[in-house]
Amino acid sequence: MQIGIVGLGRMGGNIGRRLMRGGHKCVVYDHNPQATEALANEGATGAKDLGDLVAKLTAPRVVWLMLPAGKITEDTLDDLRKLLGKDDVVIDGGNTFYKDDIRRAAQLREQGLHYVDVGTSGGIWGLERGYCMMIGGEDDVVRRIDPVLSVLAPGRGDIPATPDRDGRDPRVEKGYMHVGPVGSGHFVKMVHNGIEYGLMQAYAEGFHILEHKDMAELPEDQRYRIDLADVAEVWRRGSVVSSWLLDLTAGALAQDSSLQHFSTEVADSGEGRWTIEAAIEEAVPAQVLSAALYTRFRSRDIEAFPERMLSAMRFGFGGHKEFPVK
Amino acid sequence: MQIGIVGLGRMGGNIGRRLMRGGHKCVVYDHNPQATEALANEGATGAKDLGDLVAKLTAPRVVWLMLPAGKITEDTLDDLRKLLGKDDVVIDGGNTFYKDDIRRAAQLREQGLHYVDVGTSGGIWGLERGYCMMIGGEDDVVRRIDPVLSVLAPGRGDIPATPDRDGRDPRVEKGYMHVGPVGSGHFVKMVHNGIEYGLMQAYAEGFHILEHKDMAELPEDQRYRIDLADVAEVWRRGSVVSSWLLDLTAGALAQDSSLQHFSTEVADSGEGRWTIEAAIEEAVPAQVLSAALYTRFRSRDIEAFPERMLSAMRFGFGGHKEFPVK
Amino acid sequence: MQIGIVGLGRMGGNIGRRLMRGGHKCVVYDHNPQATEALANEGATGAKDLGDLVAKLTAPRVVWLMLPAGKITEDTLDDLRKLLGKDDVVIDGGNTFYKDDIRRAAQLREQGLHYVDVGTSGGIWGLERGYCMMIGGEDDVVRRIDPVLSVLAPGRGDIPATPDRDGRDPRVEKGYMHVGPVGSGHFVKMVHNGIEYGLMQAYAEGFHILEHKDMAELPEDQRYRIDLADVAEVWRRGSVVSSWLLDLTAGALAQDSSLQHFSTEVADSGEGRWTIEAAIEEAVPAQVLSAALYTRFRSRDIEAFPERMLSAMRFGFGGHKEFPVK
Amino acid sequence: MQIGIVGLGRMGGNIGRRLMRGGHKCVVYDHNPQATEALANEGATGAKDLGDLVAKLTAPRVVWLMLPAGKITEDTLDDLRKLLGKDDVVIDGGNTFYKDDIRRAAQLREQGLHYVDVGTSGGIWGLERGYCMMIGGEDDVVRRIDPVLSVLAPGRGDIPATPDRDGRDPRVEKGYMHVGPVGSGHFVKMVHNGIEYGLMQAYAEGFHILEHKDMAELPEDQRYRIDLADVAEVWRRGSVVSSWLLDLTAGALAQDSSLQHFSTEVADSGEGRWTIEAAIEEAVPAQVLSAALYTRFRSRDIEAFPERMLSAMRFGFGGHKEFPVK
Repeated sequence: MQIGIVGLGRMGGNIGRRLMRGGHKCVVYDHNPQATEALANEGATGAKDLGDLVAKLTAPRVVWLMLPAGKITEDTLDDLRKLLGKDDVVIDGGNTFYKDDIRRAAQLREQGLHYVDVGTSGGIWGLERGYCMMIGGEDDVVRRIDPVLSVLAPGRGDIPATPDRDGRDPRVEKGYMHVGPVGSGHFVKMVHNGIEYGLMQAYAEGFHILEHKDMAELPEDQRYRIDLADVAEVWRRGSVVSSWLLDLTAGALAQDSSLQHFSTEVADSGEGRWTIEAAIEEAVPAQVLSAALYTRFRSRDIEAFPERMLSAMRFGFGGHKEFPVK
Repeated sequence: MQIGIVGLGRMGGNIGRRLMRGGHKCVVYDHNPQATEALANEGATGAKDLGDLVAKLTAPRVVWLMLPAGKITEDTLDDLRKLLGKDDVVIDGGNTFYKDDIRRAAQLREQGLHYVDVGTSGGIWGLERGYCMMIGGEDDVVRRIDPVLSVLAPGRGDIPATPDRDGRDPRVEKGYMHVGPVGSGHFVKMVHNGIEYGLMQAYAEGFHILEHKDMAELPEDQRYRIDLADVAEVWRRGSVVSSWLLDLTAGALAQDSSLQHFSTEVADSGEGRWTIEAAIEEAVPAQVLSAALYTRFRSRDIEAFPERMLSAMRFGFGGHKEFPVK
Repeated sequence: MQIGIVGLGRMGGNIGRRLMRGGHKCVVYDHNPQATEALANEGATGAKDLGDLVAKLTAPRVVWLMLPAGKITEDTLDDLRKLLGKDDVVIDGGNTFYKDDIRRAAQLREQGLHYVDVGTSGGIWGLERGYCMMIGGEDDVVRRIDPVLSVLAPGRGDIPATPDRDGRDPRVEKGYMHVGPVGSGHFVKMVHNGIEYGLMQAYAEGFHILEHKDMAELPEDQRYRIDLADVAEVWRRGSVVSSWLLDLTAGALAQDSSLQHFSTEVADSGEGRWTIEAAIEEAVPAQVLSAALYTRFRSRDIEAFPERMLSAMRFGFGGHKEFPVK
Repeated sequence: MQIGIVGLGRMGGNIGRRLMRGGHKCVVYDHNPQATEALANEGATGAKDLGDLVAKLTAPRVVWLMLPAGKITEDTLDDLRKLLGKDDVVIDGGNTFYKDDIRRAAQLREQGLHYVDVGTSGGIWGLERGYCMMIGGEDDVVRRIDPVLSVLAPGRGDIPATPDRDGRDPRVEKGYMHVGPVGSGHFVKMVHNGIEYGLMQAYAEGFHILEHKDMAELPEDQRYRIDLADVAEVWRRGSVVSSWLLDLTAGALAQDSSLQHFSTEVADSGEGRWTIEAAIEEAVPAQVLSAALYTRFRSRDIEAFPERMLSAMRFGFGGHKEFPVK
């Protein structure tokens, strides 16, 4: 089928490529003309602006937005609303906050437009491996765009089937799931990323304990120099902690087990934060997911005000004079 | 080669089976004669006690202990020391605390005996999938038992190779690693389990947030009934959080997504606790691994004394009279 | 001066009493006529509804709302807006979310009305000890209501002066602080409560460790039966952890050190949650404050879904058959 | 009564001074002769070594050790054992691990010597305010040294009595408590310090949220510049979070609310760590106390290996190219 794609960054460009490989026709637009041209050279129809993109699509249209969450997505959607017509479908494949999905879908509904939110996991690997997708929207609309979704999804591949799934929605085993009403796709993707933070932090803490095991303060016969690259590799094979994140870790450590070229400051995106807010709204304890988020906050805190405060208190009650600096 | 196995529970029995399938000859003993007999029926040589087991092995002997960590292992080792001779090797494949390994190896060394600690992951799946093993001990001794280790290990299988590993120890890619001196195998296995707790807790918290998303307190358009079995399944395919633990979770949820038949009280074994102690010894922060452990502690606390204390304070300053029960 | 008070619950009633003791004239209203009458019997002027209350106040009026945060406060304010006139002042002394203050103040401003938010700490003890108040609003308006604030505040009392405060705002040492613009009073009160949760949890965990020190699993010479009431009492005297919360704890433990009559389920109010959301907005790590909040969530979770999930995984990889119940 | 004091640092010297003010006779020794001389000039009898100290004491002797926990205390005790005689009492007033107390007391008992452990809180303020003491040892021995303890303790002072304490041990209200057998004094002091960490961290996190409230990323009408010194001061007066630690914080902030002269690296001593180990031994969740400890560990971690690991994983799955440095 024919589909419009707006936003041709790392994710959007590859989504277009994978769709074209699957036989779909893409009309593409990026505010950077070179990005548009690049994909046009690979077989897509380039558009010079949103109006052009809409004009080049046959109604009822399907437009996939793949833009940074927030203002850019919001503004593009506002512009697009004015250009689209009854029964057209807008898909937001970015990392939008699910409450924004709900609000937007209600606005579009007034004009007879449909909105589908697609939480998309797969990163730079999606072009080859396919994208794991969590989808929120009306039943028939999600069915309408199924040709697109089924091409983007990884498919069954050689992943062993889970027992006891007879009679269940077969799309899920191909790597895409229609979760429920608008917003539910991004909600599940949001929690996915929250879990991702927790998993990453669990590995990071464990490897930190291994890495420090040769510190001079330990008794000599309890000190080990542990080859972290080998540990990550061996755990990939038959251990309980094997995972795709571990595969990536094994790769990074094999290149340089000191990881010296990686930043000590770790970014966090909206999903990790929204996951905690969702937990709090539901009164669900989220110790691990929060701790993972806070570690990232801490990694970027240069001022260290709370630590100074602890030092000030220690000085106050104990006269720990070594602490005040100069 | 020939090997003695002491302890024929879930793990020990299957280790014997996998070794025999690999062409090794096993002399086996369990304090429960039926367990010994069962394995004898499958081709092993049964022994009626430790002395008999030692007698049936040709020197220099190799004996694999697969017993619950703690007193039983300790006592068996004490008995075995008196029976073994110079250059014999004792392998502890259980979940022993690595400082106990160090102490024991020093004792055995005085008698010319060798000690190897093997942290063994794989659980009930090891018979088919093979066991991921982390090994501590002297270099030549670990080499001597390589025929045993290589049969128990999962081997390369169809797991994609990690790039940039040329020139590294090939055993690691087959699923077993000689980490370093005595104790280091169990140390790495210990941290492995600590990470396991953290990973499990990350999933549990995330699914809890999904599961609660239809609670009545939320605004109606923000409530979703999410099919947890499908979420677990879809994340197995191309998502960042795919892992073996997720595979298992998907299986459990597919059977019954309410998990009603599983206990609300979660056990913890030594490794999770020792991991935190190791972190503290090294002054390494372990927020996530600790939180995971504490959740298990909390799951078994019926008294809830600290919660009563919070209620008492709230009553004290706020007269929150609803709280004191009757 | 004359002041209207709306809401005569535990807090509002005592605020009225303290104001009358300080020589102020109170016009009071509660939707429960008996509450209004009770305070009228103590010298206040009772009003039969909001209109009556406004009518009995001389312009420019000052009305103190002391209502549960949320819908009731919101509705009352909507009604009041229609009754009040230019330059009248509304004070919200409840536990309102500071972003609601900002929104409301902007609405009132359009009518020439003023809004002051007063975060009020002191609970049931405030009548005697005075109320610690954190205030947000316009400078001259906060000055206008100073006679009211200074009477409600605890005053200097016999609390030792902090050195190096010369030249600073003297109101602060009397127990009330004009923090800044509208919302800032409730913001500081919100963080105050967040800290309160953290402090309470620190004590609860510590006493839990003391309380469990006689458990049968410990080596006999490491078991102690510790008198918790005495510990709390002795720490009140010269120790680093002395505090008002500890005073209250000592009182509760002296009555019954088992705390059997207190609930194991601990409520949380909005402030603890909003504090975490504020931390996340600011990218400030809040490990301890979050952990304290989550403990309360956990205390009320009967389903224990995440724990079941851990059990299901343990069963999946280890065949820990003891876990599935029945 | 007469008492020997070994170790005349910040704590030991002031303990000697307070005892002399209370009419006791002190024989003092420090390995630094100037420290010994300083106290001799204030009325104590100086000793030139341990033997001299023992010789100058009348049997049955009482010797108070006030030394850094660990090797120094251990060595001194070993030397002292050889010099003391039947029924002499050694008091360890330092921050010794309670399991070391138990071991040492057993050794001393063989020689007919007595051991008392005194957990001592009060820091540099103890000379004036008195020391809060938690005591472990035999009943009659603790009674024997009561004259010393009652002088060191703060006494009732003007701290309001806790209701419902009639018939309880009156020593507790004077600020010292005989907890139970040997080790129990240091155990309670250990938990005291664990709680201290938690309380400090709760304040530090809360003030961090206040301090960051004027960050540029927030909407303009939600930004406040909050005077932290004033907040700490106002909370001292009638609020739920008032405490001695808050008094100290208010003092530090009044001097310089930026706390620029205080270190961002925060030390931790044994008690905080041992508290977590005790929690783990007892299977007691200690989320807040652990988080407080880990924050200190993190404050001193320059390498930030786990953060690099997170960056490496993010790069691995998302191609977040901004992260690898250079």
